[in-house]
Amino acid sequence: MMTLVAPSILSADLLKLEEQIKAVEAAGADMIHVDVMDGRFVPNITMGPKIVEALKRITSIPCDVHLMIEEPEKYIDKFAQAGADILTIHQEASLHLDRNIEAITAHDIKAGVSLNPATPLEQIKWVLPKLDQVLLMSVNPGFGGQKYIPYVSGKISDLDKIRKAGKYSFMIQVDGGINHSNAKQVLDSGADILVAGSAIFSSKLGLEQAIKLLKYPSPDPTSI
Amino acid sequence: MMTLVAPSILSADLLKLEEQIKAVEAAGADMIHVDVMDGRFVPNITMGPKIVEALKRITSIPCDVHLMIEEPEKYIDKFAQAGADILTIHQEASLHLDRNIEAITAHDIKAGVSLNPATPLEQIKWVLPKLDQVLLMSVNPGFGGQKYIPYVSGKISDLDKIRKAGKYSFMIQVDGGINHSNAKQVLDSGADILVAGSAIFSSKLGLEQAIKLLKYPSPDPTSI
Amino acid sequence: MMTLVAPSILSADLLKLEEQIKAVEAAGADMIHVDVMDGRFVPNITMGPKIVEALKRITSIPCDVHLMIEEPEKYIDKFAQAGADILTIHQEASLHLDRNIEAITAHDIKAGVSLNPATPLEQIKWVLPKLDQVLLMSVNPGFGGQKYIPYVSGKISDLDKIRKAGKYSFMIQVDGGINHSNAKQVLDSGADILVAGSAIFSSKLGLEQAIKLLKYPSPDPTSI
Amino acid sequence: MMTLVAPSILSADLLKLEEQIKAVEAAGADMIHVDVMDGRFVPNITMGPKIVEALKRITSIPCDVHLMIEEPEKYIDKFAQAGADILTIHQEASLHLDRNIEAITAHDIKAGVSLNPATPLEQIKWVLPKLDQVLLMSVNPGFGGQKYIPYVSGKISDLDKIRKAGKYSFMIQVDGGINHSNAKQVLDSGADILVAGSAIFSSKLGLEQAIKLLKYPSPDPTSI
Amino acid sequence: MMTLVAPSILSADLLKLEEQIKAVEAAGADMIHVDVMDGRFVPNITMGPKIVEALKRITSIPCDVHLMIEEPEKYIDKFAQAGADILTIHQEASLHLDRNIEAITAHDIKAGVSLNPATPLEQIKWVLPKLDQVLLMSVNPGFGGQKYIPYVSGKISDLDKIRKAGKYSFMIQVDGGINHSNAKQVLDSGADILVAGSAIFSSKLGLEQAIKLLKYPSPDPTSI
Amino acid sequence: MMTLVAPSILSADLLKLEEQIKAVEAAGADMIHVDVMDGRFVPNITMGPKIVEALKRITSIPCDVHLMIEEPEKYIDKFAQAGADILTIHQEASLHLDRNIEAITAHDIKAGVSLNPATPLEQIKWVLPKLDQVLLMSVNPGFGGQKYIPYVSGKISDLDKIRKAGKYSFMIQVDGGINHSNAKQVLDSGADILVAGSAIFSSKLGLEQAIKLLKYPSPDPTSI
Repeated sequence: MMTLVAPSILSADLLKLEEQIKAVEAAGADMIHVDVMDGRFVPNITMGPKIVEALKRITSIPCDVHLMIEEPEKYIDKFAQAGADILTIHQEASLHLDRNIEAITAHDIKAGVSLNPATPLEQIKWVLPKLDQVLLMSVNPGFGGQKYIPYVSGKISDLDKIRKAGKYSFMIQVDGGINHSNAKQVLDSGADILVAGSAIFSSKLGLEQAIKLLKYPSPDPTSI
Repeated sequence: MMTLVAPSILSADLLKLEEQIKAVEAAGADMIHVDVMDGRFVPNITMGPKIVEALKRITSIPCDVHLMIEEPEKYIDKFAQAGADILTIHQEASLHLDRNIEAITAHDIKAGVSLNPATPLEQIKWVLPKLDQVLLMSVNPGFGGQKYIPYVSGKISDLDKIRKAGKYSFMIQVDGGINHSNAKQVLDSGADILVAGSAIFSSKLGLEQAIKLLKYPSPDPTSI
Repeated sequence: MMTLVAPSILSADLLKLEEQIKAVEAAGADMIHVDVMDGRFVPNITMGPKIVEALKRITSIPCDVHLMIEEPEKYIDKFAQAGADILTIHQEASLHLDRNIEAITAHDIKAGVSLNPATPLEQIKWVLPKLDQVLLMSVNPGFGGQKYIPYVSGKISDLDKIRKAGKYSFMIQVDGGINHSNAKQVLDSGADILVAGSAIFSSKLGLEQAIKLLKYPSPDPTSI
Repeated sequence: MMTLVAPSILSADLLKLEEQIKAVEAAGADMIHVDVMDGRFVPNITMGPKIVEALKRITSIPCDVHLMIEEPEKYIDKFAQAGADILTIHQEASLHLDRNIEAITAHDIKAGVSLNPATPLEQIKWVLPKLDQVLLMSVNPGFGGQKYIPYVSGKISDLDKIRKAGKYSFMIQVDGGINHSNAKQVLDSGADILVAGSAIFSSKLGLEQAIKLLKYPSPDPTSI
Repeated sequence: MMTLVAPSILSADLLKLEEQIKAVEAAGADMIHVDVMDGRFVPNITMGPKIVEALKRITSIPCDVHLMIEEPEKYIDKFAQAGADILTIHQEASLHLDRNIEAITAHDIKAGVSLNPATPLEQIKWVLPKLDQVLLMSVNPGFGGQKYIPYVSGKISDLDKIRKAGKYSFMIQVDGGINHSNAKQVLDSGADILVAGSAIFSSKLGLEQAIKLLKYPSPDPTSI
Repeated sequence: MMTLVAPSILSADLLKLEEQIKAVEAAGADMIHVDVMDGRFVPNITMGPKIVEALKRITSIPCDVHLMIEEPEKYIDKFAQAGADILTIHQEASLHLDRNIEAITAHDIKAGVSLNPATPLEQIKWVLPKLDQVLLMSVNPGFGGQKYIPYVSGKISDLDKIRKAGKYSFMIQVDGGINHSNAKQVLDSGADILVAGSAIFSSKLGLEQAIKLLKYPSPDPTSI
């Protein structure tokens, strides 16, 4: 499967979102990753449905919305109506996980579930057949610029094995601390979609090259 | 006292914030009003410290941050460090209101307290001498584009009387549904600062004229 | 104004609700009072929208629903759709009291606000013009069979004075410990609607006489 | 083991509970299933201890109470005192699951634990030896009339295997969307007790036949 | 009325409580003030029922327990059983204030209600006749060693006027930042009981003199 | 590995902590176990950072702090600054378990995670390599004097197997109902550190003998 890259606009220049979105789209981004934080599930507050609505007016690539919020059931309809193409909720925030997934897919959009680094894969075992995407956090969610947690590579590969064994069709998305040095390892572990923020928007390589090198990471990252 | 106008960037084009901020600054805005919503205190999620940080890089007028969030004590330091010049919390969200005000002023910035439409003025009686600003909500907070609640005019004038009687120095800010038709009434009731969103950013008059007519509203609003 | 009596079905025989409802309707009840408890706002769990739906199929007198629940905003639509004619929420449970009242009246039904015994009238001052009913609790809500709290009579008469001074049109409903001994005093204090449970359903007088004697209480209750 | 059938009175005619209870008891029901909802753990409010108390006065079959509520520890004593014969709490609502089970069995009644559809069996591994009943939800709890979630059959059979391997004595109860078409499959997977609402109370077959066909489901459900 | 002094053991040497308690008792303390904090209502965790139980074994002066905790209803019985002679809860933490007061007095002990500095007196208006004590916080609760908030003197004197007008019998207790410099002003405002921590346990004057000078403060505090 | 014994000061005479601490230190205690309870995570309130601070002034053995509190992230810094040498949080209270562990080790102190009796080991699988200590609760936390739950022995030995298989270096600490009769069984299952309260402070054997017999339990406990 070809690697997909999802730039996280939380790391973009928030004063010039239109320009930044169009630039990453032109540079080969496969989707736009939107980090929604409520200041409760995670210790930061970021953006909401109005940003999704705005993005949809200027880009044709999918809008991939990651809800780092408590009681996501209150916001599923709002984000779907705002135009989300993929809506990912957290298992840790979902008392009724199956219901929340059904609420997403009822809008005919893709449903994802995300897990914090320490949360076992076991927690989502029964709903894997229903998912379009599993998002494994590779940092503790809340902020950009953190370092990739090494043990998550093992979790990615465990999930990949479960996927193969169960013949499931979900994509594995990984988010947190991904850069040109570790992208190859993350992909080799089984990831399909890499979320990246500063590795794209703050890269000296330019957007196009930065995205390309995430999709096709050099076998020798020290050469970058 | 001269009327001040605070455009709320929640109604700006979020894809072009830099352009919009610079335009309202040039058009005579006295401060930039930032509506922070956590999806818990109000049924919407909007923006956080990163936006404040970004604004501070491009504008020299004060950044007036309105925290519509639960447990504001968790975020006072973050918004102060991000560059807020005025930080307003809600009485309804503050178990320890006096402590929260002290936490704001400890950063040498201005402290405000906001009240929902139905909340009595009595609730902030003891802290009025400590405040730089009282923000009276004239709609139920959460969304732009709502209609001004008429009974709030009485509340503004009650607060103005309390201010005069106590010789307090706080400003009275009013937020919600303010437009060129009701601005005069709001100011006549005793308001000093008008927050406005669509009345500025969606006005056919142009930004400069829209702001000017809020500061010096026509005695006959039907002429607009 | 004529006194209205609202039998609380929490004190009815729950195994024979149809029979009981029809009997109190025939006996002169003016509305059916439904006590909804969520086990969080009050230490008891009772009944929900399904009961309201059921009642509406068999009675033509108004269904007066008292929501003793947290976050009533989550249930306003459900109870309105179930057929509530009057919907009363608690001020203590309403972060956005004005919004909740608007949400009720948007269904073209009557809106009430209730106060626990210790809650000051000041808390609902600004929304009084919008209300159809103020429900003063005369026991701590949660259970039937408690004793009327004497100081609530003073609160009723204060509210009646505020109503007269403001020329408001809301009804004053009183709930808790009302019986044939104290009904006169409650009505004399200014109440319009008496909620009663055991004083009706467990009365030796029979339903008709029990209701009648609440509406027209004897000046000498010791004679009963 | 013989199949037991537990009619859920949430689907009965709530206006005629006595009649309905006596009818299902006469028709062969093995216990009465009471769905307690608090509007917090699930998005509905239904009934509480008073209903249990009332049921106990008129029926001699066990009262099987399913607490779909947060902080069940607050209500265990109340429901036990009201007369519950089996008390089932949710693992997802129990911070101290072992303590809650002990609190139930201290009343000398049967203790059950329930799991939402997506919750892994692993979560109750350590307390299985202490349980009289495990209730697997086969719909997302909150409402009657939903469709059986197919993957729950796998969960039932996994639990049955764990039971056999551990020689545990708990019963497996299944609740949600069970009808005459899927009862055989549910039983074949390992269930012992079927909870059913509309499949009993709204069946055209009559109560007796409806219950009988759940206990001894036809191998060819399309023939019904 | 004679001034009473209540040393707060939170400022005592916690390693030698017995010695410290006996010393303040001998030095003229009128009661022992116990600051219970849960880390939720206030940002600190301190002590619970076990300390009260221990104190009761060694002292005969009243144990005055100040519950700075959420949901005090969960702990009223526990502290009463542990031996509290006076139990004070916070209005801000009491959804059902009247019920909580009744729960305290049902144990035949004295009931107090406390208010944070910014909370208006209006909030406890209806229950004043039921109270043995009103505790006005003169710092934001959570820690010892803070400075007395000057505006609380006005609140004390307002409460004293309300007391006189209503002929109520409650005592006025003041807690926070009280020392030999401001004790006279606090007492002159209308306080009856002074809670003091470091002004007693860390005083250079010795315990006896420190307590005496709080009861009979010098008219010229600069002389100390 | 040699057994370590951690006396829990919750069972000490709280009026004479200095004396008690020095005595258990002299008697061979390896660390002092501090049970912090917030009245929310567990149904009791006990002690906080001030006790830790006090202990550190008089003892040189490690201070082992067990946080039985919700939102431990709010208190990690406070207890670390107070002098905790080992800080143990609960998995059930940690939305962001990996982050909390990192927050502890950032203070250069040891990090532990605790599990309630019913919580599966699976829940901490990914963070085991980061831990200095896993604390398995062998009673439902909240009170001293409860009986050891037998199934926890199986959990200890499962964890020991996981430790060996993964070559992890964490210690296994067990807390709850441990005494001279069951210590051998607990140690044989794989425990390294025994927390004990009444088995030490209320033992007729004297502190030294009581600690010694926990470290080297008799093969025949009935002989004690």
